[in-house]
Amino acid sequence: MDLKKLFYPDSVAVIGASNDNTKIGYQIIRNLKEGGYKGKIYPINTKDGTILGYKAYPSILDVPDEVDLAILSIPAKYTPQAAEECGRKGVFGIIVVASGFSEVGNKDLEDQLANTCKKYGVRLLGPNVVGLMNNVIKLNASFAPYLPYPGTIGMISQSGALIVGLDAMTWANKTGTSFLISIGNMADLDFSDLVTFLADDENVSCISLYAEGLKAGRKFVDTARLINKPIVMLKSGVSKHGSVAAASHTGSLAGSHRVYDGALKQAGVIRAYSIEELFDLSLTLSLQKPMKGDNLIVVTNGGGIGVLATDQAEASGLPLQTPSNDLQGKIKQIIPSFGSTKNPIDMSAMATPQIYADTIKTVMEDESVDGLVVLYCEVANLDPSDAAKGIINGVLSSNRKIPVVAGFVGGENSINASLYLIKNGIPTFDSPDKAVKAISALRKHQQMNDLICVGPERPSDLKKDGIGSELKKYIEAGVKSLSELESKKIFSEYGINVNKTELARSKDDLMKIAQEFKYPVVAKIQSPDVIHKTDVGGVILNISNSDELLKAYDDIISNVKKNVPNARIDGIVVEEMLKGDLETIIGTINDPTFGPTVMFGLGGTAVQVLEDVSFRMAPVCKKEAYDMINETIAGKLMKEFRGRGPLDIDAVVDQIVRFSWLEYDHPEIKGVDANPMIVSTKGATVVDARILL
Amino acid sequence: MDLKKLFYPDSVAVIGASNDNTKIGYQIIRNLKEGGYKGKIYPINTKDGTILGYKAYPSILDVPDEVDLAILSIPAKYTPQAAEECGRKGVFGIIVVASGFSEVGNKDLEDQLANTCKKYGVRLLGPNVVGLMNNVIKLNASFAPYLPYPGTIGMISQSGALIVGLDAMTWANKTGTSFLISIGNMADLDFSDLVTFLADDENVSCISLYAEGLKAGRKFVDTARLINKPIVMLKSGVSKHGSVAAASHTGSLAGSHRVYDGALKQAGVIRAYSIEELFDLSLTLSLQKPMKGDNLIVVTNGGGIGVLATDQAEASGLPLQTPSNDLQGKIKQIIPSFGSTKNPIDMSAMATPQIYADTIKTVMEDESVDGLVVLYCEVANLDPSDAAKGIINGVLSSNRKIPVVAGFVGGENSINASLYLIKNGIPTFDSPDKAVKAISALRKHQQMNDLICVGPERPSDLKKDGIGSELKKYIEAGVKSLSELESKKIFSEYGINVNKTELARSKDDLMKIAQEFKYPVVAKIQSPDVIHKTDVGGVILNISNSDELLKAYDDIISNVKKNVPNARIDGIVVEEMLKGDLETIIGTINDPTFGPTVMFGLGGTAVQVLEDVSFRMAPVCKKEAYDMINETIAGKLMKEFRGRGPLDIDAVVDQIVRFSWLEYDHPEIKGVDANPMIVSTKGATVVDARILL
Repeated sequence: MDLKKLFYPDSVAVIGASNDNTKIGYQIIRNLKEGGYKGKIYPINTKDGTILGYKAYPSILDVPDEVDLAILSIPAKYTPQAAEECGRKGVFGIIVVASGFSEVGNKDLEDQLANTCKKYGVRLLGPNVVGLMNNVIKLNASFAPYLPYPGTIGMISQSGALIVGLDAMTWANKTGTSFLISIGNMADLDFSDLVTFLADDENVSCISLYAEGLKAGRKFVDTARLINKPIVMLKSGVSKHGSVAAASHTGSLAGSHRVYDGALKQAGVIRAYSIEELFDLSLTLSLQKPMKGDNLIVVTNGGGIGVLATDQAEASGLPLQTPSNDLQGKIKQIIPSFGSTKNPIDMSAMATPQIYADTIKTVMEDESVDGLVVLYCEVANLDPSDAAKGIINGVLSSNRKIPVVAGFVGGENSINASLYLIKNGIPTFDSPDKAVKAISALRKHQQMNDLICVGPERPSDLKKDGIGSELKKYIEAGVKSLSELESKKIFSEYGINVNKTELARSKDDLMKIAQEFKYPVVAKIQSPDVIHKTDVGGVILNISNSDELLKAYDDIISNVKKNVPNARIDGIVVEEMLKGDLETIIGTINDPTFGPTVMFGLGGTAVQVLEDVSFRMAPVCKKEAYDMINETIAGKLMKEFRGRGPLDIDAVVDQIVRFSWLEYDHPEIKGVDANPMIVSTKGATVVDARILL
Repeated sequence: MDLKKLFYPDSVAVIGASNDNTKIGYQIIRNLKEGGYKGKIYPINTKDGTILGYKAYPSILDVPDEVDLAILSIPAKYTPQAAEECGRKGVFGIIVVASGFSEVGNKDLEDQLANTCKKYGVRLLGPNVVGLMNNVIKLNASFAPYLPYPGTIGMISQSGALIVGLDAMTWANKTGTSFLISIGNMADLDFSDLVTFLADDENVSCISLYAEGLKAGRKFVDTARLINKPIVMLKSGVSKHGSVAAASHTGSLAGSHRVYDGALKQAGVIRAYSIEELFDLSLTLSLQKPMKGDNLIVVTNGGGIGVLATDQAEASGLPLQTPSNDLQGKIKQIIPSFGSTKNPIDMSAMATPQIYADTIKTVMEDESVDGLVVLYCEVANLDPSDAAKGIINGVLSSNRKIPVVAGFVGGENSINASLYLIKNGIPTFDSPDKAVKAISALRKHQQMNDLICVGPERPSDLKKDGIGSELKKYIEAGVKSLSELESKKIFSEYGINVNKTELARSKDDLMKIAQEFKYPVVAKIQSPDVIHKTDVGGVILNISNSDELLKAYDDIISNVKKNVPNARIDGIVVEEMLKGDLETIIGTINDPTFGPTVMFGLGGTAVQVLEDVSFRMAPVCKKEAYDMINETIAGKLMKEFRGRGPLDIDAVVDQIVRFSWLEYDHPEIKGVDANPMIVSTKGATVVDARILL
C-alpha cells in the first residue's frame, strides 16, 4: 500500500496542540511552522482559538477540509478515542507520540489503538515515536527541533531517544538526509512498510536503519531482498545482556545475533557496527554508485597513511593490486620522481593540487580501475582546502566515472576540507581506514545483490504431504521427540541421505534384513525403558558380518534382560557404520523472529566448544547454502589439503537445501539436530538425528 | 643512557639555517622562535650574519658556548662531515632531517653517519625525520609548523609524513601531548631508547607509538615489559601487501603480524588498529588511572545508546553486571520513575545536570564499582554543555576516584561539550562504543601488566651444553635437517616428552629392544635413499607384540630391497603408537625481528587450513604459555566437554616452555616443527618432529 499521503501530506492536524511552549503539543506546531512546511496546519485544541497563528479546532471532526496526517500529542489512554475520530474524519495516517504502551507492558491499550486504526483503514506510525521528518517538503512532523541536513538518505530509528542526536549528527557530518523517521512500537507500520516506501521514493538513494529488534523478521527479509537500493543497518542488542536491555527498552524481541547475521545477509543488508559506521556507510552509499569490480587504487601524499589504507583494503576483502605498466607509466609523468607509481600511488609530500587532479583523472580513466580512494595527510606545504579543490577538479575532469572516496588526516582545516568535499559529492573521512571501509561497502552492495535469492526452487522429490500427516499423528499422540529411527524415516522422504538404519523386532526380522547391510554395522537395543544403552550392554559396535549380527542380537537381548529385568524391548536397531573425513551438523529451528531457519557447522563433539555454525532463513537456494558452508571452519576443513581431495561440498549443499525445505514446509517441527552428518570425498550422510515437535 | 640533554637542551644549533623562507633551514629557526623556546639558538650558515634576529656562525665549531642539540638541515651527503664537526664540538645529540639514506637503499651513507656519531658519542635521531617537539619547554625542533596541544602523551611516529597530520589532530581533538617525535630510520636511537626516555620523564603519562616495523624487536619487548606507564601502539603494515609497502617506504622490515601480536602482548603493549583509536586510547590512558576490576557501570540519558554500550562492553570483555540492590535503591531516589536502575542506569531523556551529578557521585562512591561510562544523547530539553557541567560536578564531588569516560552523541554542541570535558580531564568520545572501548583499555592495561613475565625461570634439567656440541657436529657436517630420530633425541635432553622411538640396526638389535616397547608400535625403514617410505612397503602400522615386530623387520627389509634394490639400509625405526584426544603442534623459529620464538596451535592436517596458532618470543614463562594456549581453538578443544575430562594443559605448558628454551639456548636452530604432539587427559607427547639448522 502506498504511504505517500502519510509522508507527503497536504494537510496536518495536531491533536493536543497547545500554546504552552513546554508542551510537545506546542513544539510540534512550532516545528511544522519553522521547518517550512507549506501545507495546511490544523491545531486541535478545546480551549484556544489560535496557536502560533493557526486557527484551532475543538475536534478533528470540526476541521472543514480533508486531513491527510494527524499527530496525536495526548496521553496514551486517550489515543484510541482520538484514533476513532480520525477514522471517522477519513484521515489517512496518524502519528502517536505518547509512550505507555507495549514498551511498558501495556499491550492491551496498544492493541485497542491498532484495532481502531485498522477498522477505519487509518495507517499508524507508533505509538511511542518522536515523529517523522521529510526534508523534501520541509515537513517536521515531530518534536525534534529541526530538520536534518538535506540529502538523499532515508533513515529510520527504532530508538526515539536517538532521533535528536542523529538529527544533530547529520548537520555536524553533513550527512544529507531526506527522511528521518522514528518507528517506535510498530503497532501497525513496521520496518518492511517504511523501507518499501523509502525504496520507492525518488528522493532516497540509501536506506539507513537503527534497529533494536525486527518484530516481523521474515517479512522484512522478503521485502529487503527485492530492493535494489542499498540498505545499511545498525542492529543493537547483539550481546546477551544487550538483548535483555533491548527487550526491556522498547518491548521488542531481539533474536539471536547469529540468526540475524544469516537472515540479514539473505536480505542483502549491509551491516554497520556503530552509529559512526552507520553514518559513514550511509553517506557513501547515498553519494556514490556500487563498485563493479575488485580493483581498488589508493592515491596518497604520505606513505604512512598509504600503508594503513593497504592494511584495511586487505582486511576489507579488496587487497591492492599493482597497476598495469601502462598506468604506472602515465602516473610517472605526473608525480615527483621520489614518489611511487605502485598501489598506493604515493605522490609524496610535494603533491600539489594539480598533481592531485592529474593523478586522479589518469587513474579514473584507466578501464581496469574499479574504485579510487584519495588520501591527504596534512603537510606544511599544501593546505587541505587546496588539496580538496585538486581532488574535485580531478574527479570532474575525468571522462570515466567510478566510485571515489577520500580520507583527510589532520586538524580543523582538514575537517573543513572534508565537509567541503562531502558537499561536492565525495564522501570523505578522517582516516585512511574509514575511507577504505566506506568504498568497500560500495563493493559489498554489489556483491550482496549478486548473492540474493528470490524464490528458491523447491526440489521436485520432497514428499511434503505424506510427512505432514505423519507428523500430525505424532503431535496428536503428544510425542515431543522422535527417535533416531523415526527421524531418519522422515528425512528419507525429503531425499536427505541417511545411513541405512532398520529396526528388527525379532530374530526372524533380523535374519530377513541382515543381508541388506553393508558391514560393519552397529546394533543397539530399542526400548522405551533404556536410556543409557551402552551402560547395560545394549550396544555392540563393529559387527563385521551377518553371523556376528545374529549373535549380537542374542547378546544384547540377554544383557538387557539381565540388567533391566522389566524393560519393554521393541527390538534391535541396526545401522551401517560410516567412516568419513569430517563430522558436521545440520540443524533447523522455528525462530520466533525469522520463522523456519536452517543451520550448518562443524559437528560431533566440537559443536558445543567451537560454536562454528552458520544460519539462514529457510528455505535456502544452493548459492546460499554454499555461502553458509564458506562461513564456517567446517567449510575450510572441506577444502583439499595434504593430498586428501576436497570433500563433497555439493552433497552438503543438497542436504542443507533439503533440511531447509523440511523445516519450511513443516513449521510444526520445533527443531532438528542432525549430528553428526559424516562428509567424505563422495557424499554426506546423516548418522544420528532427532526431530523435536 | 640518559637522553635528557637531547630532549631538554639548553642550546640548539641549526646547521644549514637560512633566510630563505621556502627552506627547511629557515622554517626550523622560525619554529624554534615562534614555538617559544627559551634556550639559546645558533643558526649555522656561511653567508648570512643573522637569521630571524639570531647571530649566525659559519661553522658549529665557531659557536662560543656549549651546544646540546644540533639540527642538520643539509643534504644527505654532507651530513657525515657535519656530524664530525658536531662530535668535535662536543654536541650531545643531533637530528638529521635529510632523506636519501637506507630508506632508498643508501645504507652505506647511513652507516657512515652513524659511525661518525658513535665515534664521538653523539646521539643521533634519524636520519629522515621531521624533528622533535617538547611541549614542556616549548621546543619545536622540527619543520612541522607548530607544537602539539599541550598534555602528557609522549608520541613517536615512524612515518615522518604523518607528523604534521598528527600534530594538527592533537589540536582538533584536544589530545594533550608533551612530546611528538619523528623517529625516522633509527640509525642510532630506536624505539627502545626513546620509549625508555619517555617512561622516565615526569611529563609523560602515556606512550603512544605509530610503528611500521621494529628494527630491534627483542630489545623493544625487553624494554617495554619493564615499563609501568601504558604504551599504545598502532602497528601498520599488517597485511601482506602492507608489509611490502612498509618495507619500500621506510626501509624497515615488517615482521609477520602473528609474531608481532605475541611479542607485543609479552611487552604489555596495548594495540590500536587505526589512527583514531591510537588517539582515543592514548588520550584515555593519559588522563585516567588503570581500572582495577571488571565491574563497569554505564549511566545514560537514552536507552538506544545504552544498548550499544552494553553490546560493546560484552565485546570488550567487560559484560555489564546488575548493580547491587543497595546501589539500585539509592539510584531510584535520584532518577525519574520511568528510568531504569539496572545497568545501563537509564536516567531517561528527562535527566537534568543535577540528576547527572547525583547519579555519578552515587555510582562512583559505591565500593563495588570499578569504572564508569557516562553517556549523553542530544535531546531537546538538555543542552550538551549543561550535561557536561553536571558530569564534572558529579565526578568532582565524589569522595572515591575511579576511571570515568564519557560518550556524547549529537552535533556541533555535543562536540564542543566533549572538548570541554576533555579539558577537564574526562576523556569523551562521540559514540557509546568508543567510550566503552576506551575504558576497557584502562582495564586491559591493568590486566596486561599482571600477565607480564620478567626473566622467566629456566627449568633446571635442560642439558644445554650437551646439545650445543651435538648441534655443532651436525652444522659442521653440513646437515640442514635432522631426522625424526635425531630430533627426538635432542628434544629428550630438554625434557621434552616424546613417544619411545628406537633404531634397530640389525635383527639382533631389535631382539634386544623389542621387550622395551609398549604395544602397539609402528616400524619404518631408515634409509637415506627412501623418501616415500609407505610407497615401497617401508612402513608397518599397528604391530601388537614382539613376535609381530620381528616378522615386520623381515618384511620391511625384503620389501625395500625388492622395490629399491640399491638403497642403503640403516635399519628399522620402531615407535610406540599413541592414541590421544587432540593433535597439536609446537614449533620454533629464529625470527628476524624478535629472535627465538615459539609457536603452539592445532596440529595434524588442520594446521595449514585453520592456521590456529599463537606465537611468543622465547623463552616463555608458564603463564605466557597458558595465555598462548587460551588464544587458540586447540585451547578450547582441550577444555572438558561431553563427558570427556579436560586435557592435560599443564603438560602442554611444560612442553611449550621447554621448546622455548631449546630455541632460546640454541638460536643456531633455524626452526622446529613438532607435529603432531598428541595431548590426552594425562600427558602431551611429541610423535613426529623435525629440526632445521
